[in-house]
Amino acid sequence: MVETRDDPTIVEPTDAIIRVTATCICGSDLWPYRGVTDVDHQVMGHEYVGVVEEIGAQVATVKVGDFVVGSFWASDNTCEICRAGYQSHCVHRTLMGLIGTQSDRARIPLADGTLVATPRQPDADLVPSLLAASDVLGTGWFAALAAQAGPGKTVAVVGDGAVGLLAVLAAKQLGAPRIIAFSRHPDRQRLARDFGATDIIEERGDDGVVKVQELTSGLGAHSVVEAVGTQESMMQAIHATRPGGHVGFVGVAHGVSIPGELLFRSGVHLHGGPAPVRQFLPELLQLIWDRTIHPGKVFDLTLPIGQAAEGYRAMDERRAIKVLLTPTDVNETRGSSR
Amino acid sequence: MVETRDDPTIVEPTDAIIRVTATCICGSDLWPYRGVTDVDHQVMGHEYVGVVEEIGAQVATVKVGDFVVGSFWASDNTCEICRAGYQSHCVHRTLMGLIGTQSDRARIPLADGTLVATPRQPDADLVPSLLAASDVLGTGWFAALAAQAGPGKTVAVVGDGAVGLLAVLAAKQLGAPRIIAFSRHPDRQRLARDFGATDIIEERGDDGVVKVQELTSGLGAHSVVEAVGTQESMMQAIHATRPGGHVGFVGVAHGVSIPGELLFRSGVHLHGGPAPVRQFLPELLQLIWDRTIHPGKVFDLTLPIGQAAEGYRAMDERRAIKVLLTPTDVNETRGSSR
Repeated sequence: MVETRDDPTIVEPTDAIIRVTATCICGSDLWPYRGVTDVDHQVMGHEYVGVVEEIGAQVATVKVGDFVVGSFWASDNTCEICRAGYQSHCVHRTLMGLIGTQSDRARIPLADGTLVATPRQPDADLVPSLLAASDVLGTGWFAALAAQAGPGKTVAVVGDGAVGLLAVLAAKQLGAPRIIAFSRHPDRQRLARDFGATDIIEERGDDGVVKVQELTSGLGAHSVVEAVGTQESMMQAIHATRPGGHVGFVGVAHGVSIPGELLFRSGVHLHGGPAPVRQFLPELLQLIWDRTIHPGKVFDLTLPIGQAAEGYRAMDERRAIKVLLTPTDVNETRGSSR
Repeated sequence: MVETRDDPTIVEPTDAIIRVTATCICGSDLWPYRGVTDVDHQVMGHEYVGVVEEIGAQVATVKVGDFVVGSFWASDNTCEICRAGYQSHCVHRTLMGLIGTQSDRARIPLADGTLVATPRQPDADLVPSLLAASDVLGTGWFAALAAQAGPGKTVAVVGDGAVGLLAVLAAKQLGAPRIIAFSRHPDRQRLARDFGATDIIEERGDDGVVKVQELTSGLGAHSVVEAVGTQESMMQAIHATRPGGHVGFVGVAHGVSIPGELLFRSGVHLHGGPAPVRQFLPELLQLIWDRTIHPGKVFDLTLPIGQAAEGYRAMDERRAIKVLLTPTDVNETRGSSR
C-alpha cells in the first residue's frame, strides 16, 4: 500500500533528514510481502541514497546538500562492536526498515555513523550503483569476505538474486580466479558472467554439489556464498565447501536448521548474518565513483514509487532481479537502468 | 573387554609398527562406552605414544627406535587438504580408533604423514604430556585457534573435561589476557586456574551466559570454545560470544541442531570439528620438550591397560578427568601422574 505520511523531522541531535533520490525493493522485503514474516503496516524499504536536507546539532561529518549513501542498519560507528567491523550489530543500532525509506523524505538516526557522502553530486548513471552499495552490494561484499574469497580461491555462489550476483562481483574484485555461479535463468547467468563468473551450474542441491566437486578435484570449493536463506541452500553451501573452507551466509534464514554432526564432520567455517555494510561503504563508494565496478546493473526495472506494488510482484515472480524506485517528485520513469 | 589379539604387521610400505608406551581413554570413547554410538567389537583408543619397532619400505622421516607421537587421524600430510592445515580431513585419512592403540603394539598407516619423533627418548615425566599432544592437547589447541584466542581477547571455555582444560592452556599460551572457564568441580577449577583461567563461572546455560556478559560489558566473549558436544553446550557457546566473535567447537556433536535464524542474528563465526592435530605436533612437542607447557597434568589416574574397564567407569562417573593406560609389558602401576 502506498500512502501519504507526515514529513519526518529531527528527533535526536544526531539525526539527519534526507530527501530520498532513489530507493529499491530488497529480496528480504519479499518475506513479509509473501506473508512469511508478520508486518503490521510498517514502512517498507531500507536501502536509499539521497541528499541531506537538515542535520541535528551534533551531526559533524555530513552537511546539508551532501549526496549520501547509508547502510540499512543505523550505527554509531564508535562502539566496540562497530570498531571491530560489525556495525550491523552496533550496540545502538536501528534497523532502517523500521523507519522506512520508500518515501520521499527519511529520518536517518546516528547520521555520522550511518551515512557516507560522495565527493560531489554524482552523475545520474552512478546513482543505481550508489544505491546498490546501500545494502545489496555491501551484503554480497560481506558474504564474499565471510567466505574468504580471494587470490587462489575457487568461489561458489548459491543464489542468483541481486546479492548472489554481487557476491560474484565482490569475489572477482577480491581476486578470486575461479567463480562458480549457481543459476538456471539465462538473464541472471549473463549478468553473473558479466560480473566475473567463470562457470555456471544449473543443477541444485546434491546434484549441484556433485558438479562443484567435479570442478574442484573432488574437494569442493574453498569459499561458498549462501545468498538464499532456505534449508536446501544452506545444505548445498556447506556440502559444496571443502574441509577447512569457508561458507559466508547472508540469506535471511527462514526455518533453517544446521545439524551439528554435519557441521562437525564438514570442517568448514561458517560466518554470516546481517552485513556490516557501513564498514565497506567508503571503499565501495570509491570503486563506484572510479567506475571500477558497476553494481547498479542488478536493477533491471525502474518504477516510480507509486507503482511499488508492481515492483514487488515483478521480483516475487522473478520477472525482475531488482527494482529501483524513484520518488514521486522525480518526474522520470525509466524502463531499465541497464 | 580386554583381549589378546595377533601382533600387527606391516601391510602397506608406508606403515610403521610401534610399541605403545602409553595410551589413554578419550572423552569421545565414552560415547560408544555409554551405548550412545554403535560399536561392534572395535579396538578402542586412538591416542598414543610409543617407540618405532619396524617401518615399511617407503617410510623416510621416522626410524626404528624413534620415540614418536601420532595424531589420532592418520594423514599423508601432502595432499591439498593437509597442506591447507586440515590433516584430520586428509583425502587419505584413516581414523586410528578403527585400528586401535589400547594394545601393546599398533600399526600406524601413513607413518611419515602421521608421526612426529621427539629429539631423543623423553624423560619419564614428559611422557604424559607427549601423550596428551596426541589428541586432547591438539584438540584443545585447535579449539582455541578456531575461536581465535589471542592477545586482547576474552576467551570463554564451555566444558571442563581434558579438552576444555587444555583449551584454557592453549588460550593462555596464545596470549589471551582473560580466560573464563565454566566449571563446577573444585579439582577441575583448580587445574583450569593452573592452566591460566582468570575467572571461573559455575552457572550453566543462560545463567552462565549472563555471567559472561557481566564480565564483558554486556557484549559477550570474543572467543568461545565449545568442548562438550551437546545442544545446551553449543547454545551456551553461541550465546556467550559477541557479534563478530568466534566459536571454536570440538565437542563431538550428538543430536545438536543449530537454528539458522539464531546463527544469522548472532553474527558469530563458527568453526570446528575433528582437530588437525598433526598440524600442531611439531610446535606442541617443542613446547612440551622445553617444559613450557605441562598438559600431562590432565591425567589424574593411571592404570595398567588390563584395568581399562575401571578407567572408563572412572571417567564416565567424572571421578577422573583423564585416564592414562600403561601397556602390560610395562611393569609399573602409577597412582597418579600429577
